[in-house]
Amino acid sequence: MSIYQTRCKRVQEGMHELGIDVLFVAPSSDLVYLSGIHTFTSERLALFVLPANGDPLMVVGQLEASMSQPHATFFALRTWTDGADPYALVRSALPQDCRRIGVTDQIWGIHVLRLQAALSNTTFVSAASVLTPLRQIKDATEIAALRRSGAAADAALADILSRPLIGKSEKQVSREIAELCLAHGHQRAGFGIVASGPNSGAPHHMNSDRLLQKGDAVVLDFGGAYDDYASDITRSVFLGAPPDEYRRIYEVVRQAQEAAFQAVRPGAPCQDVDRAARGVIAAAGYGEYFIHRTGHGLGLDGHEEPYMIEGNTLPLAPGMVFSDEPGIYLPNRFGVRIEDIVVVTESGAGRFNHAPRELRVL
Amino acid sequence: MSIYQTRCKRVQEGMHELGIDVLFVAPSSDLVYLSGIHTFTSERLALFVLPANGDPLMVVGQLEASMSQPHATFFALRTWTDGADPYALVRSALPQDCRRIGVTDQIWGIHVLRLQAALSNTTFVSAASVLTPLRQIKDATEIAALRRSGAAADAALADILSRPLIGKSEKQVSREIAELCLAHGHQRAGFGIVASGPNSGAPHHMNSDRLLQKGDAVVLDFGGAYDDYASDITRSVFLGAPPDEYRRIYEVVRQAQEAAFQAVRPGAPCQDVDRAARGVIAAAGYGEYFIHRTGHGLGLDGHEEPYMIEGNTLPLAPGMVFSDEPGIYLPNRFGVRIEDIVVVTESGAGRFNHAPRELRVL
Repeated sequence: MSIYQTRCKRVQEGMHELGIDVLFVAPSSDLVYLSGIHTFTSERLALFVLPANGDPLMVVGQLEASMSQPHATFFALRTWTDGADPYALVRSALPQDCRRIGVTDQIWGIHVLRLQAALSNTTFVSAASVLTPLRQIKDATEIAALRRSGAAADAALADILSRPLIGKSEKQVSREIAELCLAHGHQRAGFGIVASGPNSGAPHHMNSDRLLQKGDAVVLDFGGAYDDYASDITRSVFLGAPPDEYRRIYEVVRQAQEAAFQAVRPGAPCQDVDRAARGVIAAAGYGEYFIHRTGHGLGLDGHEEPYMIEGNTLPLAPGMVFSDEPGIYLPNRFGVRIEDIVVVTESGAGRFNHAPRELRVL
Repeated sequence: MSIYQTRCKRVQEGMHELGIDVLFVAPSSDLVYLSGIHTFTSERLALFVLPANGDPLMVVGQLEASMSQPHATFFALRTWTDGADPYALVRSALPQDCRRIGVTDQIWGIHVLRLQAALSNTTFVSAASVLTPLRQIKDATEIAALRRSGAAADAALADILSRPLIGKSEKQVSREIAELCLAHGHQRAGFGIVASGPNSGAPHHMNSDRLLQKGDAVVLDFGGAYDDYASDITRSVFLGAPPDEYRRIYEVVRQAQEAAFQAVRPGAPCQDVDRAARGVIAAAGYGEYFIHRTGHGLGLDGHEEPYMIEGNTLPLAPGMVFSDEPGIYLPNRFGVRIEDIVVVTESGAGRFNHAPRELRVL
């Protein structure tokens, strides 16, 4: 039995427990996880239909069938041609007593509306309730992939920090980071935030044509996909001699990031990781400038469960992988964020990023 | 009044006509079109809320507010922090008598389900009914951007065809095409299909490690975004001396592509463009091997309305831009596709791609 078949069986058990009759899995990380199929998300419906009982079915446009064909070992493939109604095709393939349908989170809204219209006596719910418990615990193969992904991001970071940055635009540095991610084995360079000077005061800054200059705080936050598994790393550096306030804030963030890491162990609720980082930052008087959660899960997606956030009492368990990335942002002045990917182990925690975390002056 | 404000006003007129009370615009081409905002699609809700009457509102997570801020000239910005309920925030911002809500096609399904749950007495419909009539007619600025985008794709194509291809893998050639797209000014290399030998018999082949070799038919289909506007070009080449059957099929596709172009003029129904190409291919006896529509619209998205497909009686109008890309695919043997982006003009049609369409033997 393939890993995909095993995963589908486990999902079917979850569907029975939660009273979900059919799962609609759209092209996304969920589809890769359950079937190995990589295919396009588009206006053309592609849908893996997994009933609570019996074999799955992949519905896909004819011109994209070749991407699903090699994986169709334990499921049937049903193709439709341009101009046909794929929603009616899905309806005709459903079991008679289908009432509750789970749809994967990233399916396009238009497909949800069309499917709801085609299946008027059903209720649509998020498929995350059955998928998340499986996906958030990574197996040994997934952990190995995430470790490779992290190492490649570390290597790209080392390379970019060894180059001259002053005089380049944020967009230029981001392009170079993307190239380095690919050169170090990433199949896809997903994102690359380069926030310089006052722009670093916004945690998700959109890269601009601003040129990096002496006296800038710079936040580099980037990642991509390596063998399908995401990387995500952040380091903050200073170009030239940093002022005392920057040094102080950097040290607070570094300690907060370390405190969060130390809080990671099996059984601890997710919110404890957030509290550990937030406690350090609040004690230093910067609580109001740490405006996001401490971390997000990571795997086939760059953001997935579990989230390290106040209110999340989910207990950590071995195999969970997530970011540890507190930050302090003084709007229009400067910001500091440090991020590693960490994994919950039987005895505590490990890191997938090993780039130095000490203040680096370039 | 900015172009975005003008567009929103026109959308509001359409909403009145179609009885849509509020539009929910998620991060996507639709958001760029209506507001200029580029922001992340993620599990964190970001939503541009446009009522039929009055000013729009942008709801966004606090850490991403900086991307919306510069555009917030004619709409209010309301931020939420991690842990808060953004769906309740959206509900609280809606007009009292809100019954029918239009949502943009690419919104994530999870957000549709959460919004539906938060707004139980409303009906959700596709926002395309109000957005498509506007978006499918490109203004002069958009046409200029699409022209630049096409020229950059032409340049990338010329470069890749001037390099040795034999001995490189499909994935390697695709990477080089992506680099060339960026080098020629694309901000994003979107996709790059390299289908070689028998793989070219599948129209949307997923690149493999297969090495290109003498005797291969090769289909190159790629595109990206240049100043936000998509490019998309396909050329089919042969490595070494092509067999007669390939030459014959190539010529049929070339004539079909030309026939479709000649069918483009204001007032002609979209399906006539498809019929023109399909007629040539069917007359040559290959009708069953042309398994997709002749073309798709193109603009801020790589695929958008109007579609050149049987059954689409929408009359072409000046400013419409779409692909002309018939193909013939002999499964597991070889395929040929030729694609240009064309624009409907007052008097007929123009092309944004000018790469040679004659059979090229490398």
